[in-house]
Amino acid sequence: MMNVPLRISTMMEHAERYFPKKEIVSRTSSGITRLTYKELAARTRRLTSSLVKLGVQKGDKVGTFAWNHHRHLESYFAIPGMGGVLHTINIRLAPNHISYIINHAEDKVLLIDEDLLPLIESIKDELNTVEAFIIMTDKHELPPTALQPVYHYEELLAQGDPSYPFLQDIDENDPAGMCYTSATTGNPKGVVYTHRSTVLHCMALGLADSAAISESDVLLPVVPMFHVNAWGLPYASVWFGTKLVLPGPMFTPKILLELIQEERVTFTAGVPTIWLGVLMELESGSYDTSSLRGVVCGGSAAPKSMIAAFAQKYNIPFLHAYGMTETSPLVALARLKSHELDLDQEAKLDIYAKQGYFVPCVEVKAIGKSGEIKWDGEEIGELLMRGPWIASEYYRDERTADAFRDGWLYTGDVVTIDEEGRIKIVDRVKDVIKSGGEWISSVDLENALMAHDAVFEAAVVAVPHPQWQERPIACVVLKESMQVDKEELYEFLKPQFAKWWLPDDILFLQEIPKTSVGKFLKQALREKVKETLETRA
Amino acid sequence: MMNVPLRISTMMEHAERYFPKKEIVSRTSSGITRLTYKELAARTRRLTSSLVKLGVQKGDKVGTFAWNHHRHLESYFAIPGMGGVLHTINIRLAPNHISYIINHAEDKVLLIDEDLLPLIESIKDELNTVEAFIIMTDKHELPPTALQPVYHYEELLAQGDPSYPFLQDIDENDPAGMCYTSATTGNPKGVVYTHRSTVLHCMALGLADSAAISESDVLLPVVPMFHVNAWGLPYASVWFGTKLVLPGPMFTPKILLELIQEERVTFTAGVPTIWLGVLMELESGSYDTSSLRGVVCGGSAAPKSMIAAFAQKYNIPFLHAYGMTETSPLVALARLKSHELDLDQEAKLDIYAKQGYFVPCVEVKAIGKSGEIKWDGEEIGELLMRGPWIASEYYRDERTADAFRDGWLYTGDVVTIDEEGRIKIVDRVKDVIKSGGEWISSVDLENALMAHDAVFEAAVVAVPHPQWQERPIACVVLKESMQVDKEELYEFLKPQFAKWWLPDDILFLQEIPKTSVGKFLKQALREKVKETLETRA
Repeated sequence: MMNVPLRISTMMEHAERYFPKKEIVSRTSSGITRLTYKELAARTRRLTSSLVKLGVQKGDKVGTFAWNHHRHLESYFAIPGMGGVLHTINIRLAPNHISYIINHAEDKVLLIDEDLLPLIESIKDELNTVEAFIIMTDKHELPPTALQPVYHYEELLAQGDPSYPFLQDIDENDPAGMCYTSATTGNPKGVVYTHRSTVLHCMALGLADSAAISESDVLLPVVPMFHVNAWGLPYASVWFGTKLVLPGPMFTPKILLELIQEERVTFTAGVPTIWLGVLMELESGSYDTSSLRGVVCGGSAAPKSMIAAFAQKYNIPFLHAYGMTETSPLVALARLKSHELDLDQEAKLDIYAKQGYFVPCVEVKAIGKSGEIKWDGEEIGELLMRGPWIASEYYRDERTADAFRDGWLYTGDVVTIDEEGRIKIVDRVKDVIKSGGEWISSVDLENALMAHDAVFEAAVVAVPHPQWQERPIACVVLKESMQVDKEELYEFLKPQFAKWWLPDDILFLQEIPKTSVGKFLKQALREKVKETLETRA
Repeated sequence: MMNVPLRISTMMEHAERYFPKKEIVSRTSSGITRLTYKELAARTRRLTSSLVKLGVQKGDKVGTFAWNHHRHLESYFAIPGMGGVLHTINIRLAPNHISYIINHAEDKVLLIDEDLLPLIESIKDELNTVEAFIIMTDKHELPPTALQPVYHYEELLAQGDPSYPFLQDIDENDPAGMCYTSATTGNPKGVVYTHRSTVLHCMALGLADSAAISESDVLLPVVPMFHVNAWGLPYASVWFGTKLVLPGPMFTPKILLELIQEERVTFTAGVPTIWLGVLMELESGSYDTSSLRGVVCGGSAAPKSMIAAFAQKYNIPFLHAYGMTETSPLVALARLKSHELDLDQEAKLDIYAKQGYFVPCVEVKAIGKSGEIKWDGEEIGELLMRGPWIASEYYRDERTADAFRDGWLYTGDVVTIDEEGRIKIVDRVKDVIKSGGEWISSVDLENALMAHDAVFEAAVVAVPHPQWQERPIACVVLKESMQVDKEELYEFLKPQFAKWWLPDDILFLQEIPKTSVGKFLKQALREKVKETLETRA
């Protein structure tokens, strides 16, 4: 067989050959831009030639700091197209983390959205490797900026070559992109994608039983392009000739629903928070969403009630997907199998509430308290994965040793796997309570407590125990003007759990410490619980 | 990214993990066998272990001489699963070609269907490398045979290990399969498939815009499993958890239609001759074919009238596919693009009559009389292809130099490519007439002549010409009791072609020499024409 490498540039070449008239809709600060794949390809080639002219060389990292729009899409192809590495920078990171990752990746050039300039300007003195800043703006003039040297994106394109050839001399294992994922403690950790991993991952997105991205789709990636390549959707869309709708900066649920209605969007993807907002907007407004064949939800688990509302109230197929920065990200989808199509609504909802079963090429197993768990939907263990689009390391980072062992990625997610091969995430490894050789899911206990009428929120953490190694302690915040005592909560929990699962104590707190995005800060909570118990003792 | 090779055995592992209860329907000489993927996987592992016990080693070739049934399917996975090379032998080759390819491939073991035994017995003394014969039969006893040493397939399985692990130590570029394609002259030419090419080709079969093979499909591969891996469909079906229906030996159109009706087949694939027979059976019988979402037709071009009959009369979507042994085979499909969905029936039929546009990963160009042709549907040139599932050579064969040049496969097919990237095969390179620096399609002239009421068949060949290099001569066989003279045929052709396309002469023959499968033997015809013209001169 021919030794033809899998290369990202062939995707753009495929689009310009077979789908030149297909349209991309891009929302920027000044409104809606429409361009065809033919135009997009010419602009991409112009950018490629301009990057080469600026001195970017094969293997150099080029950072992007931008929303979802056509210019960002052009950089997705232009940078790997000349052998560079596309480093998509998460605009929501703390400034010290942003400067850390730019320096750590050694970005040579940065492409920056005009409205995000102040963020980069605020850290410019910390940047050690950046040699040029390119501003992406709809305006003819560059905004005043202290960044130097600075270029106007459209001016560079105007000077570029619209038929510049993409670099052929690329090995499929050459780096093509990178993305940093935030860590519980310390600096973000970098993951490097290759041409091979990106192309194979896109093929998985195109499979009929996966996301089935098609030329006939109209795809709206709400997931940011600075987050794991917007789950690979921009690459897959271009390759398969899909009409792309890019929602641009500072969109609202209303803007998303208007785009869905006006562009007849068939497929969209984002995190639960987005869909919660969209659901609320659907309740208040009146939108035609009949074009939608799928709303993919990933990043964290969507509540069952939300899945039900989309599917049953608005007839919008709502699909859990599972993955992480380290896995490109798609590894599992909550699709029904054909023998499940006749199940009743409630049984289907139970399936949709899980994270799904795995796509081809991805191997999995889960390691519990005593080795590999049974696929019975009961045993719990940490999920391990292996596959051609799964990272083998963190970029120049000693934390590699924790997560990548014996050829497997240790995900840190604690799951059950049912007989159909579907996983359900029940906890994080660091939060699971190891008691007497068994594992207790903190999340299961929390969900049970939060189902009580008087409970506003609940978090369960482990405390060390001389005999059992660890035991669970529950922390509960009550709803305003609601009352419930410890005994009642125990009575409420007892029918639902084995006796040894029940928390050793239930503490009533005023609040539970949280991260900036609202997740429980379990480490801080563990210390608080320790203090409380010590004070009491 | 992890260095995880693409391996065929992971497809079977995927099926046994995620689709253990899914059924395979296999028609053998004694009736219908049903087994699940769980059972199929266990039987496959048993065969793998038995082959190892028989002494088959990594890299050894194992030949199969069999129809489409579950045992052949098991060998598809068991042989590459232990590092062997599956050599599917075309049972329709001439005996001297069969012994040639077994010797040339150096097959160590042969798996043979009971009813095909006489063919192998007749050449047994010519076989130089075969060390064991395994007979695939439903009967408990081995049939009497002169082959030695001989084994009973089911006995080997009974002694095998149902949980035998597939070989992990396989590089994705290791050989996994081989298939010989018949040549115009001389011995058949071998093509070797790798694990990588097979897996990537299967991913292409699963893409939503390609064959879209899905878990929800019921797939009937009519194309023989001894012909280019039945177009990759057995591999893709197992990987994606598709219910497979294998039609077994000596099927008829009636048997196929009954299988389609009873098993609710959604997707099937075969050559035009098969579909012509099925069409005739549809006319005479009464079958429920409403489950069909696609009938794929490849191997040679289907007549427009047949496509129309399937699509319009029976509402069965009929899809041209294009490929060859050298291309695994799928490279193009005649799917509509979304902007073509509203075209009228006739315009759609024109699209369906072409061979289609190319799937991802396949690069093409066509070289005409003066370099690369324009994609205008008018210029004609030889189709060249490049891609990860396209061969780079014929196995140990000096004819490699003719077909594989500068990293491209020269297909020998002369095509036009239209603005949508769709090819239409207009001739074979060796049959096209090179006249005065221009190319004249023999096939176009033949089709035009055969459209005349009095013409039964027509073949056009080149004769050498001192000034123009080559000129076309038409050979015509008239229908019984029909008369037409040369002048009338010229008048009939004139409005349809440029003047220089018109044949220099039209000869009336009693018959046109043909191959055993009914194709024109143009080389023999050229000699006949030469003789005729010389006799006359």
